[in-house]
Amino acid sequence: MRLTSEKKVFTIPGGLDLDKGSHLDQVKLAYETLGELSPKRDNAVLICHALSGDSHVAGFFPDDPEDARPGWWDLMVGPGKPIDTDRYFVICSNVIGGCQGSTGPSSTNPETGSPYGLDFPVVTIHDMVAAQKKLVEHLGIPRLLAVIGGSLGGMQVLEWSLSYPEMMAGAIPLATTMRHSALAIAFDEIARQAIMADPAWRRGDYYGKKGPDTGLAVARMIGHVTYLSDTALRQKFGRRLQNKEDLSFKFDVDFQVESYLRYQGSKFVNRFDANSFLYITKAADYFDVCQRHGEGLAVKAFLKAKARYLVVSFTSDWLYPTAEARDMVQAMKKNAIAASFCEIKADCGHDAFLLPNPRLAELLRGFLDSLK
Amino acid sequence: MRLTSEKKVFTIPGGLDLDKGSHLDQVKLAYETLGELSPKRDNAVLICHALSGDSHVAGFFPDDPEDARPGWWDLMVGPGKPIDTDRYFVICSNVIGGCQGSTGPSSTNPETGSPYGLDFPVVTIHDMVAAQKKLVEHLGIPRLLAVIGGSLGGMQVLEWSLSYPEMMAGAIPLATTMRHSALAIAFDEIARQAIMADPAWRRGDYYGKKGPDTGLAVARMIGHVTYLSDTALRQKFGRRLQNKEDLSFKFDVDFQVESYLRYQGSKFVNRFDANSFLYITKAADYFDVCQRHGEGLAVKAFLKAKARYLVVSFTSDWLYPTAEARDMVQAMKKNAIAASFCEIKADCGHDAFLLPNPRLAELLRGFLDSLK
Repeated sequence: MRLTSEKKVFTIPGGLDLDKGSHLDQVKLAYETLGELSPKRDNAVLICHALSGDSHVAGFFPDDPEDARPGWWDLMVGPGKPIDTDRYFVICSNVIGGCQGSTGPSSTNPETGSPYGLDFPVVTIHDMVAAQKKLVEHLGIPRLLAVIGGSLGGMQVLEWSLSYPEMMAGAIPLATTMRHSALAIAFDEIARQAIMADPAWRRGDYYGKKGPDTGLAVARMIGHVTYLSDTALRQKFGRRLQNKEDLSFKFDVDFQVESYLRYQGSKFVNRFDANSFLYITKAADYFDVCQRHGEGLAVKAFLKAKARYLVVSFTSDWLYPTAEARDMVQAMKKNAIAASFCEIKADCGHDAFLLPNPRLAELLRGFLDSLK
Repeated sequence: MRLTSEKKVFTIPGGLDLDKGSHLDQVKLAYETLGELSPKRDNAVLICHALSGDSHVAGFFPDDPEDARPGWWDLMVGPGKPIDTDRYFVICSNVIGGCQGSTGPSSTNPETGSPYGLDFPVVTIHDMVAAQKKLVEHLGIPRLLAVIGGSLGGMQVLEWSLSYPEMMAGAIPLATTMRHSALAIAFDEIARQAIMADPAWRRGDYYGKKGPDTGLAVARMIGHVTYLSDTALRQKFGRRLQNKEDLSFKFDVDFQVESYLRYQGSKFVNRFDANSFLYITKAADYFDVCQRHGEGLAVKAFLKAKARYLVVSFTSDWLYPTAEARDMVQAMKKNAIAASFCEIKADCGHDAFLLPNPRLAELLRGFLDSLK
């Protein structure tokens, strides 16, 4: 029997006060749940998605066709899987600023009746997490068993654990960082520039018209390369030609890696809003738990933490390299926090947390099992 | 006294047969020379430039203002410098396909009287080198003392040494590779997509109109990040804000690294032709000395070589990592070729060969000194 999931929408009563200093009214959160909440309400696991993810973490929608692809982390989430929906009540919501049902730049601005566009306020990782907390409270859950996420999802995990330390037993940040490095900011900025350089972007006011598809495709290609590794690309593509005959001596696709990137770019355009890309990458660039919680110091930031941590990095992740995970774990240890750390050997780069990985599966299963 | 240099133009008699299979008529090469050719004509050093370089390798033009910047490798080339113009006759020419005086897509197509645009044939590294050989012959030089270059210039060095093995005593490929990896192709392709996505590109037919400046700026930003290292960016920028006050909560520049990239992008637009960017990156992606000279095998390719080599890589170069230089050196050694190899510790990434580096200076000076 297929695991099915249904998208629900929660409207935050009274809206949300934002880091920016303003207030956002009529904030909707699209979310999905899997499994059953225990009578003691102590088996809830919140999963936070990465840049291009959404609330559909696992399983299928009731009306999905036979050949539909399941949710984005179906490998890890489901009955009998490491994040076992027979045991845990799994919650996943689309981030605010996103475009998969939660309030974001493509939502209607209640003041004007038109889509926000750039009138949508710049939101932060903390704002995303604050909205999730309202959802968790709405679901009647006093304390989460765990908060889990990779990449931008891992930033949310860190923010959760320091903003609401009493609200969870365990925190699992995967393939993430306490703050974006200059390199990570650089790639995000170039991707944003690619979108904003597209005349169809029209300063964000493109809804109902042709959007900045070419700019967004280039932005996605940039992101996509940073999620892979040199080794992964060598293994997957090397210098193999798309057309086995020969080089084209034109500016068409010659190499398979070019074709792959063009495909990734054009596929993304069909499912993602360019303004959401701008807002979410900006939130990632602004993210800095050390600054927010420790006056710039990691050790001081984790003084607040109460959760047990499982921190995981991947050897070939050059976007958030292991050294950054180690810094995080050191700051935890200096505060005598129970923190397990594992660097997993993986050739596939930053995206490793989304791919089949027995070691990661085992770690998640064991760590969740140990939580109370 | 300032070292002065003058741009000269050489027209290849009879034009050039190209790898593509076609013939290019009226091929001009812009070039500069420094120092004096010895009576024996045995002290000529050819320097090959990288993607954004040109023939102006060192010194100043006669009418340069006082505050002008010297040529792109003035650190290494000049009287008393490692590539000593008191001893060597230095030649540097702009590559064909380029936009600094040599024939390229912005040149006039003799058949139409208008700029070539995309009617310019796709040229290869071998074509660039074949044109340089005509120039060297024109200058009356039977054999070069050395051919030197970094990055795309290093590819030219390798190609020179295998296409015309009798024509040089020494070959010095710096920060380069025998063939572009999938990662290097990926970044080039994304940069090209950024240019071609700009409506002002008009399929290459933008001369006399507003060109694809925004696309070219994004392309340059992508390239620029790949020339730097994570460490270099951390040291140079970290998360320092452009405006010390605070985050903007807008899509303006927040971080210094963003401002730096935007500046690099916009500066490049003023001095480089977008079509040349397409053509030169394509030549780099097509480059594969193993394929051309060894039926896919590096060892077989270097069977032809006769020069002594000095191969240099830099620890933080992730575009052409040391492993690729080692592969090259192994192939040389297996052919019993005299090859010196040095991996220089440098935090500044691929661009290290262009920056002050006493170790590199010493290696170049010593190796040139040993050549006959």
